[in-house]
Amino acid sequence: MKPVKVGICGLGTVGSGTLKVLTRNADEIARRAGRRIEIGAIATRRINPAIDTNGIQITQDIFAVARDPEIDIVVELIGGYDTARELVLLAIENGKHVVTANKAMIAVHGNEIFAAAQAKGVMVAFEASVAGGIPIIKAIREGLAANQINWLAGIINGTGNFIMTEMRDKGRAFADVLQEAQALGYAEADPTFDVEGIDAAHKLTILASIAYGIPLQFDKSYTEGISKITPEDVKYAEELGYRIKHLGISRRTAKGIELRVHPTLIPKSALLANVNGVMNAILISGDAVGQTLYYGPGAGAEPTASAVVADLMDVVRTLTADPENRVPHLAFQPSALSDLPILNVEETVSGYYLRMQAVERPGVLAHVTRILGEKGINIEAIIQQETKEAQVPVIMLTQRVEERMMNEALREIEALPDILGEVVRIRVDHLAD
Amino acid sequence: MKPVKVGICGLGTVGSGTLKVLTRNADEIARRAGRRIEIGAIATRRINPAIDTNGIQITQDIFAVARDPEIDIVVELIGGYDTARELVLLAIENGKHVVTANKAMIAVHGNEIFAAAQAKGVMVAFEASVAGGIPIIKAIREGLAANQINWLAGIINGTGNFIMTEMRDKGRAFADVLQEAQALGYAEADPTFDVEGIDAAHKLTILASIAYGIPLQFDKSYTEGISKITPEDVKYAEELGYRIKHLGISRRTAKGIELRVHPTLIPKSALLANVNGVMNAILISGDAVGQTLYYGPGAGAEPTASAVVADLMDVVRTLTADPENRVPHLAFQPSALSDLPILNVEETVSGYYLRMQAVERPGVLAHVTRILGEKGINIEAIIQQETKEAQVPVIMLTQRVEERMMNEALREIEALPDILGEVVRIRVDHLAD
Repeated sequence: MKPVKVGICGLGTVGSGTLKVLTRNADEIARRAGRRIEIGAIATRRINPAIDTNGIQITQDIFAVARDPEIDIVVELIGGYDTARELVLLAIENGKHVVTANKAMIAVHGNEIFAAAQAKGVMVAFEASVAGGIPIIKAIREGLAANQINWLAGIINGTGNFIMTEMRDKGRAFADVLQEAQALGYAEADPTFDVEGIDAAHKLTILASIAYGIPLQFDKSYTEGISKITPEDVKYAEELGYRIKHLGISRRTAKGIELRVHPTLIPKSALLANVNGVMNAILISGDAVGQTLYYGPGAGAEPTASAVVADLMDVVRTLTADPENRVPHLAFQPSALSDLPILNVEETVSGYYLRMQAVERPGVLAHVTRILGEKGINIEAIIQQETKEAQVPVIMLTQRVEERMMNEALREIEALPDILGEVVRIRVDHLAD
Repeated sequence: MKPVKVGICGLGTVGSGTLKVLTRNADEIARRAGRRIEIGAIATRRINPAIDTNGIQITQDIFAVARDPEIDIVVELIGGYDTARELVLLAIENGKHVVTANKAMIAVHGNEIFAAAQAKGVMVAFEASVAGGIPIIKAIREGLAANQINWLAGIINGTGNFIMTEMRDKGRAFADVLQEAQALGYAEADPTFDVEGIDAAHKLTILASIAYGIPLQFDKSYTEGISKITPEDVKYAEELGYRIKHLGISRRTAKGIELRVHPTLIPKSALLANVNGVMNAILISGDAVGQTLYYGPGAGAEPTASAVVADLMDVVRTLTADPENRVPHLAFQPSALSDLPILNVEETVSGYYLRMQAVERPGVLAHVTRILGEKGINIEAIIQQETKEAQVPVIMLTQRVEERMMNEALREIEALPDILGEVVRIRVDHLAD
């Protein structure tokens, strides 16, 4: 099947990320979509020499891309309200599908844009507009489609959450952390959109519309920022068993829809309270499913690109309804399944928690650590309690090692006369990349 | 457009839940899908008088449903391996799409079933087979489709997680908690599938296949149960900064795919470590997006039905590719948007954290609480520190109240001569239904 051609408008952070992901994962994407996605054109005001655009047609005219008869899908990544709206409407007028990451444009001009797309029979996909790489639009629109949504609450601005996290963890003042966030590139020179909740309100407006089936109404959202939160408030909240988070909250009530962004105390034990730094998370309550939560990076080049490219694949899949264009049962086309072997557990790699019962005698620990050392196993921590008993439990935590080596070591350790019975062994995973 | 007719085979927990959700949310579902979903037939061995099947054709013969020319989609909810496989293959042979919640059947017979479906051009949807109401199959297959998946780790058996949570929270022994789980109906009379990791391995097998594009290979999965975990191990793990969870872990390595279910120590601060009770959660690492996490109820009648019905809607949408059958921009059909008003923030309801600076004089607190009481505002907690200063901060936590009442109360409180300056007010949300 012939490749789909996309035109990328805007080569900033997200544009560059999209280019990288489409290039690096081209085979993986084709294995899934059953069709290659090619970049037919890029429109950018300034060429970034750090980005390899070799062999791709580059223009400074975004509108030329929207008119280009070779382009099937226009990817709008220029941001802002008006020019973006103009670009998207022109692309629709020219019968092109659109993928966008632009929350401001969707929240403010979405009703107009969707009506135009509907009239023209094209799609406007906007997964990347809310919570970056978290597929939250898909989760609500499709995954929870059986539910009447009762309410949703989300940490949907990474900058604000970074500030709130630092204020809590280190007792720092708002202005102080904001300055650091700006230095780190998390916050803009003018931080108003982030810290006053406008960015979050754009996203909340979108989430509420797809949750309840109401038109986009950004102008009716209520926003309150975090600039007035003081270290004392953070401390008193902790004392009371709460944490302060900058949340977007939307609730369906008998009278209507609540749509509000403001600092909120939530119970410390709630998962949302434990979402730290620049991460985003959205908690949703549906009448059938109950509460589900979606967590991940809400911004950044490749996380956002992940959503942009997923949207591209969705559009590609729905261009026709023949079985080849459906989502394949195992995610990848049947002809493109891989024969990667499943490893035997002896070949897998883990850290280990070990607990053994040892005779309380000098030198026992030295024996055990020597055996581990010989197998290349490093010890991270040991607990050995003082005792007057003849036997003592020894607990060790090891670094990552192939299970085969651990099995060999344990056979030798269990053979030591001063180690009694079997060694308890539980694997450890730090859930890090 | 004419309604789609589904035949439900099996009227146990999930079957009953599916019937309830399809009935209760019929309008909401049609508003989203653009087409009504009707129950054309139910096959069940025993009629459950508690369930209203009024007006629906009931049969004891599941195979009759698979042959019924009136039925478009067969929903397999009988569970087990062989009869379910037979039913699904018969439905496919008769050109019907299939929706199933059966992890065991998919993990063991999936390759055969998908090949048959592929040959016949029908779909087999199985979102409900992993992690109940969490749309995890959709998230991986579609939402993260741009990524090369590096690894995933999940709490994908609620019974096991309930047991591990109780052991940690209350220092209880495995056998003791298992007995309670059985009494509560969380664990089967024969708990082997749950506590030995077989159920989790079924689900992990499915997740790994869609993550990496490999055929289903349940027989190569490694499983280790939680029955040997002792209260001491739980305690020592805590001392070392970890919690023990029964995880399904799959990792792509240079040599092949790891596929293993076993007790695992994970850092206390990890979100996965804070997933408690019968809840499920899956953490996924993709090369573009980084880490995302999906959390929710992994079992139960309506949570699982939520996934079954979402699958039904997906199948309905892909029956044709005309714009009406695509996922609508705002999740609901444009003609079915609702005119529910967005409430003014004064009409919204929250709990409140209040902090005020008061002159240290008897009776001040009485004044404040009287004003709150007159507005129907209940106080949940007060912090008032002993001090020798002339002024003292007073912190209060209130129950939920309409914001208008709080605003009125605060105007009166701020007018008190003994309250200095503005009252700091932050909303409180318990994130409960």
